[in-house]
Amino acid sequence: MSRYAVIGTGALGGYYGGLLAKAGHEVHFLMRSDASHVRQFGLRVDSKHGDFHLPAVHAYAAVEEMPVCEFVIVALKSTHNAALAQLLPPVLGKEGYAIVLQNGLHVESATEAVVGAGRVMGGCCFLCSNKVGPGHIRHLDYGNILLGSYRGLSGTSPEVPVAVLDRVVGDFAKAGIPIEGTSRLQLARWKKLMWNIPFNGLSVILNTATDRLMGDAAGRALVRAIMEEVQVAANACGEPVPVSHIDYLIEHTDQMVPYDSSMRLDYLAQRPMEIEAIFGNPLKAAREAGMAAPRIQVLHDQLKFLERNRLEGNSKGAAG
Amino acid sequence: MSRYAVIGTGALGGYYGGLLAKAGHEVHFLMRSDASHVRQFGLRVDSKHGDFHLPAVHAYAAVEEMPVCEFVIVALKSTHNAALAQLLPPVLGKEGYAIVLQNGLHVESATEAVVGAGRVMGGCCFLCSNKVGPGHIRHLDYGNILLGSYRGLSGTSPEVPVAVLDRVVGDFAKAGIPIEGTSRLQLARWKKLMWNIPFNGLSVILNTATDRLMGDAAGRALVRAIMEEVQVAANACGEPVPVSHIDYLIEHTDQMVPYDSSMRLDYLAQRPMEIEAIFGNPLKAAREAGMAAPRIQVLHDQLKFLERNRLEGNSKGAAG
Repeated sequence: MSRYAVIGTGALGGYYGGLLAKAGHEVHFLMRSDASHVRQFGLRVDSKHGDFHLPAVHAYAAVEEMPVCEFVIVALKSTHNAALAQLLPPVLGKEGYAIVLQNGLHVESATEAVVGAGRVMGGCCFLCSNKVGPGHIRHLDYGNILLGSYRGLSGTSPEVPVAVLDRVVGDFAKAGIPIEGTSRLQLARWKKLMWNIPFNGLSVILNTATDRLMGDAAGRALVRAIMEEVQVAANACGEPVPVSHIDYLIEHTDQMVPYDSSMRLDYLAQRPMEIEAIFGNPLKAAREAGMAAPRIQVLHDQLKFLERNRLEGNSKGAAG
Repeated sequence: MSRYAVIGTGALGGYYGGLLAKAGHEVHFLMRSDASHVRQFGLRVDSKHGDFHLPAVHAYAAVEEMPVCEFVIVALKSTHNAALAQLLPPVLGKEGYAIVLQNGLHVESATEAVVGAGRVMGGCCFLCSNKVGPGHIRHLDYGNILLGSYRGLSGTSPEVPVAVLDRVVGDFAKAGIPIEGTSRLQLARWKKLMWNIPFNGLSVILNTATDRLMGDAAGRALVRAIMEEVQVAANACGEPVPVSHIDYLIEHTDQMVPYDSSMRLDYLAQRPMEIEAIFGNPLKAAREAGMAAPRIQVLHDQLKFLERNRLEGNSKGAAG
């Protein structure tokens, strides 16, 4: 059994942390305003794979109250990564490892800056879940993770020891979380970006869901053109995403239930959007590899504008 | 004095046609449902340069009732150009010339297809006016026209005789309309597109006005990047728009009053948008010149999607 901390107990941290606790691991949850509710009533997970309730949960409102843990799961939105410099040191001892389960490219670098090179894993998560109330998670679908060492912005940071990665993979797998280790975390990140960049971006900018985009000729053409650009950018950055991955993602999306992207939910709820992680960092990486990526740049700039002008957007939409 | 027909008596046709009639020309207006109102009450123009009222106006609900004219001003929205095959023959005699005062690139080709090569002029209009009621136009600002021969999709159609162009320029100028003849209509069209493509497109997609776009760092960067792409496209198409025109337009827009683009007004009023004229045709021209124009393509596809999905967009906007 291992000792985990979960920093950020939302839809993702609550789901994975809940499964780890259910499997018998000692899991300590940072959950801010929900902490007292959860200490009293426990953590509830309604899942496609079976509902469960954990009556006794280590829940904390402040990281200073938490014990030092072997593994710290970073499950905040990446828009809050500036807080990691305060959040990580009390809970992650000198021997601990961080597991960054965030969306986007190089989201691990804020963690690495605190924790140090060679001690950070990144996970690409494919999860549909929501937090529906205090200490109450609803898992809708999927949940698999691709986990690998984060090798830094330069790609040359030392790897996390194989035994450590294997132990995390084993803990998660035995807890019922489909997980695979990968030696190419960046490749996995880019493959996921190939979906996130068009669908997260367009769902906010065009105020729509995946099925509407795919059901419109211009929407489909636009999604494909953006995916093509991300594929070229990935290859320019040394990550060999094959062209065939575009058709795979499009077919996969056609078969999905209509889906509101997390970015659209953030936008509608007036929360900050993960624009830097999903658009800004890939753009920067592409630019450093000598590629302009004009479509990603247009989406990035449109989202930045909307984030700063969303109130006007909503009120005018109502008037129209 | 000349005999003009105005096909489409909206904000533009009503304003220019009204000034020509006021100057003593015989002007015949096709104005559909407004015709009986205008026959009874006349045409009213509230203008920055002085209000006026024309009590006796030749107003028609159907083109078949109109006499053959020397000059036919095409002032419909280009989204209705398919109707020109019916509308032009009764009013434009064998000797007549057409003056296409529409927005966008190669909007004249639908007129040329009916009227024939060498008999079509195109005008780039810089006009802020609205139709505020039946037979009632409000002119807000500007109004100048650059008028030139339309030389066809290939650029090789014969020119309109210089004497004819000069006569139109003289008629308009004496009626108080600032007008200049140009031997390079396509160059003028591209220069106007360099403003229309970013501002018409983004005002609809981001649901905003010019001043908000220019007041935001990402909005400004995006406008500039799109202008740069249009400038390169114009040059690829053989029209030497100088790079300095970008700074000129940005400075000019900074000094403008906050302005709702015509495309945004169309979008909010559920009218068809001039997507083909302003985005589709320039894209096609750039592509034929070997250029991809990814930013214009993104805006084009986003607008096409929004036009077909605008009801959802508005209702969801209200919910957010």
